[in-house]
This record gives sequence, C-alpha cells and structure tokens, in this order.
Amino acid sequence: MGTVGTGVARVLTEHPDRLARRAGRPLELRRAVVRDLTKPRGIDLPAGVVTNDVAAVVNDPDIDLAVHLVGGVHPAREIMLDLLNAGKDVVTANKALLCACGEELFTRARELGRTIAFEAAVAGGIPIIATVAQSLAANQVTSISAILNGTSNYILTQMARENWDYAQALHQAQQLGFAEADPTLDVDGSDAAQKLILLTWLAFGVRARLEDVHRQGIDRLDLSDLRFAEELGYTVKLLAVARLVNQQIELHVQPTLVRRETPLAQIHGPFNAVGLVGDIVGETWYSGPGAGQMPTASAVVADLIDTVAGRTRINFERLEVWRSPPPFSLQPREKIETRFYLRFQVLDRPRVLADIADILGRNQISIASVIQHEPPESSPESPSGTSAATTVPLVIMTHRSTEGQLRAAEAELARLTAITPPHIRMPVAR
Amino acid sequence: MGTVGTGVARVLTEHPDRLARRAGRPLELRRAVVRDLTKPRGIDLPAGVVTNDVAAVVNDPDIDLAVHLVGGVHPAREIMLDLLNAGKDVVTANKALLCACGEELFTRARELGRTIAFEAAVAGGIPIIATVAQSLAANQVTSISAILNGTSNYILTQMARENWDYAQALHQAQQLGFAEADPTLDVDGSDAAQKLILLTWLAFGVRARLEDVHRQGIDRLDLSDLRFAEELGYTVKLLAVARLVNQQIELHVQPTLVRRETPLAQIHGPFNAVGLVGDIVGETWYSGPGAGQMPTASAVVADLIDTVAGRTRINFERLEVWRSPPPFSLQPREKIETRFYLRFQVLDRPRVLADIADILGRNQISIASVIQHEPPESSPESPSGTSAATTVPLVIMTHRSTEGQLRAAEAELARLTAITPPHIRMPVAR
Repeated sequence: MGTVGTGVARVLTEHPDRLARRAGRPLELRRAVVRDLTKPRGIDLPAGVVTNDVAAVVNDPDIDLAVHLVGGVHPAREIMLDLLNAGKDVVTANKALLCACGEELFTRARELGRTIAFEAAVAGGIPIIATVAQSLAANQVTSISAILNGTSNYILTQMARENWDYAQALHQAQQLGFAEADPTLDVDGSDAAQKLILLTWLAFGVRARLEDVHRQGIDRLDLSDLRFAEELGYTVKLLAVARLVNQQIELHVQPTLVRRETPLAQIHGPFNAVGLVGDIVGETWYSGPGAGQMPTASAVVADLIDTVAGRTRINFERLEVWRSPPPFSLQPREKIETRFYLRFQVLDRPRVLADIADILGRNQISIASVIQHEPPESSPESPSGTSAATTVPLVIMTHRSTEGQLRAAEAELARLTAITPPHIRMPVAR
Repeated sequence: MGTVGTGVARVLTEHPDRLARRAGRPLELRRAVVRDLTKPRGIDLPAGVVTNDVAAVVNDPDIDLAVHLVGGVHPAREIMLDLLNAGKDVVTANKALLCACGEELFTRARELGRTIAFEAAVAGGIPIIATVAQSLAANQVTSISAILNGTSNYILTQMARENWDYAQALHQAQQLGFAEADPTLDVDGSDAAQKLILLTWLAFGVRARLEDVHRQGIDRLDLSDLRFAEELGYTVKLLAVARLVNQQIELHVQPTLVRRETPLAQIHGPFNAVGLVGDIVGETWYSGPGAGQMPTASAVVADLIDTVAGRTRINFERLEVWRSPPPFSLQPREKIETRFYLRFQVLDRPRVLADIADILGRNQISIASVIQHEPPESSPESPSGTSAATTVPLVIMTHRSTEGQLRAAEAELARLTAITPPHIRMPVAR
C-alpha cells in the first residue's frame, strides 16, 4: 500500500456500492500490506486489515484476488509467483516485472488456471490494454506511436514553455513530484520502452525484449534543440514507436520531432497519449493522465471488477502475446528509415558545411534543409568567421535515410576536427 | 448488407484465422440479407449466402448471432425482435432504433437470455461504449464532451479552412459522400443527440429521451461566426455535452465555441472525439473516424468477437442504463449555465449597443467583450453611422449566465427594431 495502493484502498472503501453493482458482487478489502506500519497514509482502514507481512495475504485462503503493486523485479517476481501458487488471481501495475518475467509469470498463471490483469502497467489513465486486446480485435494493429512517460513529457513541456534548460526543468519536476529523486529510468527512455514492449507483445504477438528497443533519452537535449524544432514547425516529444514495416516490427523510443498541428504535439505536461492504427479501423487516438495515484488506481480497480465479473479470464486466455510461429520478425535497427534532425556544434569557419554535406552525401543521406544563424556575438566590429574559437550550432534536416546510413556517416563525421562532439540527432515522426 | 454490412462481410471473409483466434472459434458467415439481389457489392460470397429474405436468417436455427444493420426505427425494431425471439444474439449499429426503443429491446433480450451489443452505434471507430461500460468502471463519469457527428465536423472544418459558406461546404460534403442527400439529421444535431442519449444512459444510468436534449444545429451558422470565434481564440464545433452539475444532468447538442488550444479544437474533417471525465481517473480523450464502412465494421466485428467469446453476456447483464431509482435527475434547460457568444445584425446607428447592453444587464447577463468592426464600406467620404439602412454585425461575449436569463433577454431584444432577426447564439465550452 504505497501511493497507488492507498488510492486503490480509497476507491474500495469509498465506493463499495458502485463497485459491487459493476462487479456483480461486493469487493471486500481483506488485507493491505505495508512496509512500515507506523507511516501515516491518510486513510482509515478497519482493524486487522493493515499488515507488514505478505504471508498474511498469500496464506489466507479467503483471499481470491491480490492487487500486486510491488515495484522492481525482485522480490516482486517471487511475491507474484507465491500469490499465483496460492490460487489467487492477480492485478498488477508493474511493467518492469512483466517486461522482464512476463513469459514465466503468464505461463505459470495459465498452468494454475489463474489470471494476471495489467491495464495499470501501461499509461495508467488510458485503457490501452483493453483497446488493443479487445476493442480493436477485428484489426491487425499496424502502428503504435505513443507518449508513454509523463516525467519526460512534463520536462519537455516546461523547457519549451518556460525557456528552461534540462536541469532546471528536471529540478522542478522533482519538486512537484512528477520525477523521482533518481529519474534515470524515466528520462533515459527505459520506462517508456518497457511499456512499449508490453504493447508490442499484445499488438503484434512477437517476443520482443527490452534490449530489442532502439532507445535514446531526453537527458542530452538542449533547449536550443527545442527552439530549432519550433522554427522548423515541430515539437519535440519522447516518442515510443512500434510499427509494422514490410512484415517486420520497427521498435524505438527516442526524442522525436512531431509536426506541431498533430494530436501528439498537443499533449502537455504529465499526460500520456497513444496513436494506434489498425488495418480495418484506420487511425485512432487515446490520451489521459499517464500515472499518478488516482488515475492508476482507476485502472487497477477496473481490472479488479473485470476479474470478479469474469472478463479477465476470457481476455487472459486469448492474449496473443507470443504467437508461435512469430507472425513478424523484428527489424534490425540499421534498417529503420526516417528523416533526421541533426545538430552539430561547429567552428565558425569556411568549408565546415561543405565537409559535412560531402560526408552525408557519400552515405546516401540527402539534405532537406539547413539552419545556421549568425553567432550572437557577431557585429560589424567583429566580423564572423574570423575567430577560430567561436562555435555555432548547425542544424540539418535530412530526407529519408536509414539508421545504418546515418551511423556510417557519423563515424566519418567524428573525424572532422571542426565539429565539437557530441552532436544531437532525432528522428522525425511520419 | 449495405455499406457497413459489406465491410463486415469483407472482414469476415478476408481474415477468418485472425477472428477465429480472437473469438475462440471460427465465425462463419451464413447469410447476408440484401434488398436488391442484382446490385453489385464488390465482394464474392459463396453461393446461397446472399438472400433478400430476412426470414432466411430468422428461421435458420443454425444461426446464433445476427448483425443487425437495418436503418431507421421501422421495420428495424420488428426485425430485431424477430431475431431475439428466434434465440439469436444481436450486434447492431442502429443508434436511432436504440434511442427510440432501447428499453423495450434490452428488456426483451434479457427476458430471453439474449444479448444486444452496440459499440458501432456511437462514434464507429472509437471504442467508447467499452470504455464507459467497462474500462472506466471504477468511476462515476462526471462529464462527456464530444464531437459525434462527422458530417457537421467536416462542414465546419471546410468552412473555416476554405472560407466557404455553409451551403458550399455542405455541397462538397455531399459530393465526397460525407453527407447524405438529405443531411437534416446530421446538421440539425439529431444524430449527435441520439448518440449522446446512449452515452448518457450508460454513464449516468438515467432514462433520458431525445426530446430531453437541448438541441441546435449548424445549419444557421454563418462564415462570419467562425471568423469572429477565431478572432476571440476559439474554434466552432458541434458539441454534444452531458455533464453532472449539482446531482443533475445537463444535456445539450449545440454549435459551441471551443478554445483553440484544446484537444477538441484539433479534431478536423469527418473525425469524432470524446472527452470523458471520471471522478477517479480525471480527464481522458478518445478520437478516431466517426463513421464510414471499415471503421464501423471494425466496431461491429469487435462486438461479434466479444459475443462469441462471452464478454458481451457479462457486459450486457451489467449495463447500468436505467437505474432505479434514477441516481440523477435531468437539469431543466433554463438552468444550463454557460458563457454565450451572441451575434446580432444591427443598424449602424447610435444607441444600439447601449439598448442591447441595457436589456442584457436587466436580465443579469454581464458582458465580457464586444466586437464591432467598422462597416466595410465606411470611408472618409461616407462617414459611418449616418445611413439608417446599413447593418453591421455586433458580437457580444457574455460572462456566465443561464439559458433562462438569456431567453428572457432574447424576448426583450426581439422588440428592438434596430436588430435584424435572427441573431446567432452559441455557448462557450468550459
């Protein structure tokens, strides 16, 4: 009973009639497990409900259904196995655990005739698991483009709105509780990649792992990149993409240039959004709060109701998570084809653009547009281009090329002494 | 087997393996009923499948499940009753029928132990029935704000984009198949109101009827209203609203000023969108194609799969469509409280604004802003305000007031000879 667990307990205790009507029978909160019995949680539960002993749940034969809100992989995995082995259905919000051990846990649950529901594991307030697994059942999903990490989206929104640099926006996100003390997994793309993996299993039936996701975080972005993107008509979003291209699945999480007038560009602050394309329905969009106590509790309680009402059993039996033989293979990341935004910090001297253009050209990357502003210090008294120490940003938008071509070009570009590493690169959303 | 029926037949015949996996057993298309056997439909069905006799479905004991895509109320009602009485579960897309006879049909289906699924009846490509009835089950929905009529949204989008008047945009919509030859039900708000009624039943459990919806269409709007709205920072959308206010349900479908930077303002062309607020989850958004052959077929086939898999039975038993006693009452329309956009066509002479402001003020309506541009023909040679025949638009944005206050003011304003009727009025979305 951490943050989300307290939210679930609150819904269970404040709306018993509503839930009983919708589930078909009353849901009784029997035990709430906490680590520290003395910590105040702002909720009054009947005597005997709160315990610090997981075994009090595992070993209670009257408990049919367990809400598993333990973070991380260990001992979360062992606790979930204990719950399943004890004959309990499980509702979880732990994407990291499912991503790492989903196959083992799902298999074990099926052997035991139990179910695992996990709507809350991806984009808390958006019913995206039900949509993919059930509402779009007539379709082969062909594309997922999603903002799945609220922390990153909040930071990017604040940088763009307030003209803050990354560190300043991160600090504010931490102050407001939108970012953890250690924000690594949020800002480096791992959290979004874990959620994307779960959606990829469901939508494409392939056995993808976290290491199959081409991944880049927002932590190296500069405010200037957001400004250049704006100048070009784009907004920068940490975009998670799984797309069916020539019977292969393209998978990546990267800061991405999104056209300003598209729905994803309008998702601000800690919100999540998912764009799903199905071969029958066409393009559909879903958005809502991505995390937080009550939005996640809403998804957990929906799963509780579905499990009690019997829908979860039907869904869980039919989940097409790892079809055999796999219907699609994963696309090698070198083959990912996209337009690229590139920003180099270059010495303000002749021939630099020509050298870069030459290397890109030899690697079959053609240039769509270039932005190079005069350095801010340039003035009639100090003509630009004369001081060897001055570096200026050089932004290049390419036409469609592949990740492999860009990597080959990057290896050559690394030898140009006029470029101060590292450079920044982002794909452009279709 | 009209347009949508042909789409459903196509999905059934082109993707039998996909559907069998997801439903748990094969779906066999046994009969397709058409009015005219000679009309080409661009789909090859096995001999004996196509018939022009509904009785061939009703009386075939091997048919378990009927897709009911008959439009209108009669004989659609009688056909559905025949299907239910013959022991068949039914999937329908007919919102008008459910709106008019839903209570009778649902009751009959329950008596017979049969189910009616109707995801396709509201916002075809958006799984909004499943979302309200299932995914948000932890919540009391507190607000629905939706674009539910694709024809109207297409017309409004084209007027704003192309500077077309209403007639011109309607004509193009008809040419492109986005509007029917008789577009009345689409553009006068009836179609959106029927869909809103179904959502209102599900979300609030109250017995609302079509005549309870305060309704206004887009057919009286002028291009100038869209331009004034733009000047004020808004976009005009035909908005369907059902909202819980002080334990009463506010219900209306009206052209509405929507703030330009909000998600609903970004919905263009024939798309639909639904904003749902739940008391636990907060604000969520859904959008997708609102109608059309394949998006609607996607929803119909999802219902087919749900019915075969057993989910529809669980859902249908738990639909909270007309709770008893009703948990909320309907708000009298005089009590609807909102800001208003008002456009009067007035004689360009002194005291007109003062007279209007006086009447509004005496009815407790306070003015937030006014737009009155100089008449286009005004120039130094012909000073404005002197010709009694010149009329000019006068736009007033009010602060929050009630429908009742505005109606009282409108009765007085009708007596001002300086105003050329009719005036235009639209609420402003919160």
